[in-house]
Amino acid sequence: MKKINILSKFKKFNSHWSPHSIAELNGQQVIIAKVKGNFVWHSHKEEDELFYVVKGRLKMEFRDKTKEILQGEMIIVPKGVEHRPSADEETWILLFEPVNTKHTGDTISKITKDIYPKI
Amino acid sequence: MKKINILSKFKKFNSHWSPHSIAELNGQQVIIAKVKGNFVWHSHKEEDELFYVVKGRLKMEFRDKTKEILQGEMIIVPKGVEHRPSADEETWILLFEPVNTKHTGDTISKITKDIYPKI
Repeated sequence: MKKINILSKFKKFNSHWSPHSIAELNGQQVIIAKVKGNFVWHSHKEEDELFYVVKGRLKMEFRDKTKEILQGEMIIVPKGVEHRPSADEETWILLFEPVNTKHTGDTISKITKDIYPKI
Repeated sequence: MKKINILSKFKKFNSHWSPHSIAELNGQQVIIAKVKGNFVWHSHKEEDELFYVVKGRLKMEFRDKTKEILQGEMIIVPKGVEHRPSADEETWILLFEPVNTKHTGDTISKITKDIYPKI
């Protein structure tokens, strides 16, 4: 039952598109990541995914539109919906999703991470 | 798939200890509340509860210790653990917890809210 300081956790790594797990509860996980550039198009069959922008500006592309998520804003991507996150400048995001949600869904990519370090 | 601005949501109500639901995903809900003073001692049999401090300072009392959660920090209260949140000054908190988690667990109180407005 330790306190978790989100900004301190972000200071523990620098790699982009590399999710780190900072907490688990009720079968869900709290993930943080630094992102820059384009991710890959993917969807999650069974999992909704919450993206919250801690710092910067996240672009979330959908097949029919693009949303810009600013610092202090969140968006939920429902299960089954194809999406591609991207960011022009380094952006810090927090995600809330079920434990074992696959990083890039069923999409195979060289940037896919199978395991998220716990920090 | 609308963006959710957390601070804008906080501006929609002023009452203390009155949770408002701002999002749902994977059977979980994102709740915000303004708190001041003492809540009631309670626990949740089946639900872990995440508290994140958006503004101010949250005191979380447990039977054997007290934790102070500052802005930008979070704490997870595991299921079954008795706790009493309180705040000396008005504090804004965000919670993640399963949908239908009871406000004050099995504790009966005049400040218990059965329904959380969706805003």
